Amino acid sequence: MPPQTLTIVGVGLIGASIGLAAKNRRLFRSVRGVGRNRETLQRARDRGAIDELSLDLRPLLADSDVIVFCTPVDRIAEQVLEAAPLCPATTLLTDAGSAKARIVSAVENRLPSGASFVGSHPLAGSEKRGPDHADANLFAGRWTVVTPTPRTPAAALERTTAFWHGLGSRVKVMTPEEHDRALAFTSHLPHLLASALAGLLPPELHDLAATGFRDTTRIAAGDSGLWTAIFEHNSAALGLSLRALEDRLGEFRRALEAGDWNTIDHLLTQAKKVRDALGS
Amino acid sequence: MPPQTLTIVGVGLIGASIGLAAKNRRLFRSVRGVGRNRETLQRARDRGAIDELSLDLRPLLADSDVIVFCTPVDRIAEQVLEAAPLCPATTLLTDAGSAKARIVSAVENRLPSGASFVGSHPLAGSEKRGPDHADANLFAGRWTVVTPTPRTPAAALERTTAFWHGLGSRVKVMTPEEHDRALAFTSHLPHLLASALAGLLPPELHDLAATGFRDTTRIAAGDSGLWTAIFEHNSAALGLSLRALEDRLGEFRRALEAGDWNTIDHLLTQAKKVRDALGS
Repeated sequence: MPPQTLTIVGVGLIGASIGLAAKNRRLFRSVRGVGRNRETLQRARDRGAIDELSLDLRPLLADSDVIVFCTPVDRIAEQVLEAAPLCPATTLLTDAGSAKARIVSAVENRLPSGASFVGSHPLAGSEKRGPDHADANLFAGRWTVVTPTPRTPAAALERTTAFWHGLGSRVKVMTPEEHDRALAFTSHLPHLLASALAGLLPPELHDLAATGFRDTTRIAAGDSGLWTAIFEHNSAALGLSLRALEDRLGEFRRALEAGDWNTIDHLLTQAKKVRDALGS
Repeated sequence: MPPQTLTIVGVGLIGASIGLAAKNRRLFRSVRGVGRNRETLQRARDRGAIDELSLDLRPLLADSDVIVFCTPVDRIAEQVLEAAPLCPATTLLTDAGSAKARIVSAVENRLPSGASFVGSHPLAGSEKRGPDHADANLFAGRWTVVTPTPRTPAAALERTTAFWHGLGSRVKVMTPEEHDRALAFTSHLPHLLASALAGLLPPELHDLAATGFRDTTRIAAGDSGLWTAIFEHNSAALGLSLRALEDRLGEFRRALEAGDWNTIDHLLTQAKKVRDALGS
């Protein structure tokens, strides 16, 4: 028998897409959405992402089989720790935060015995926000990283993996620290770079910013508050990735200044091979 | 009466798209394609981008009303200078190269009197190549920069502008040097950045490179030889743009290392405003 009730805390793009995917695939008997903004919750319900809405999580804790926190990274640990003591031991708590180590360690150090929290990160964001952009297929074929620790019960890890598989996602298991080092490079650094480039564009060059510029800077349209919190959560690993990129840019600059076109060609050829291997 | 004959030298993505647009809009009575590779020319003809093909430009020079050179930037000046002495004075010569100052000055200094070359750059490329990706609407609503000099006859500038307008493009007139400074930032620097980032991705992180990484690095799949030549043609302006970007990355790094989240938030917020203003 499938679990009875899913509670989604935060019904933005990710939370509402989880709701839509869960309802389309009939994974739960009931899907509830919780948030601070009634209007956002109503839009999520109107889109069919949730069955019921509530401004207060507490009354829903006693009968939630799975609770997934899709709130900004700087609020997740606190919300999980407020909820956990009021949940039955059978409730699975997970999240969708883009940085993991600080959240997982804050939660694990204060989690009541018997409660289960397993960190998750579906790699399926976009620069868009809100339930209006939710997509039942957002996770289909994409990866979700699940980040257990030595203290995570095997059954909780299994349920978390099954939850994301149920939504159509593929699942990769990593430690929170491995996740944060990897995502510093594959997600947080691209956001920083896109923002650095976009931020330097003067108004008189807007017309000359064509497809290449637009692709390269697209994610800079993401919410700045959410991304500041992600950078703060993962500042050490992000700093290391940025140093590596600065070193590579220095190689490009020295070759440009020296007229060393062999080195430029080598760097561009190697990058093209990597990008071609990634696919569209 | 419309011009009789358009000759396109190089029928890759840009050249074949010019042909498709010209034929769809019936701008010329005949569209001919010239190249070194018969198979590519045949594919362009099969797609309907050209009526006739030739491996040799010389026999076509006497009766071409417009010749547009869509070859790599490091070959354009030489090809124009070989063609110009064999053309009637009424032939308009233009190009589609991504860097302008070196080409325009090399051509102007040696152009036979009476001949007209006006540099052009349609901002409509992509990481894709070849006539198979040609698109009759590639230029529709996009900008083409046309780069006259004080020696350019007004009538030649007017014909060049009319040519691109005919293909559906909007036209911006700039000096070759203004063009190169602007495009260093809006096109050549994004390519360099995308390549720096893509080139650093280790194989074990491919699965974790999601939409943001893919968007940010998409143009790194462009042809490395073509881009090395563009970087060489515009190395001084590109070097200055790269310095400005390195300074901005330094601001990000110092703020990350100092835990100065106000500065990070300010930088991300300002970049988001710029990117939002650009649109998709």
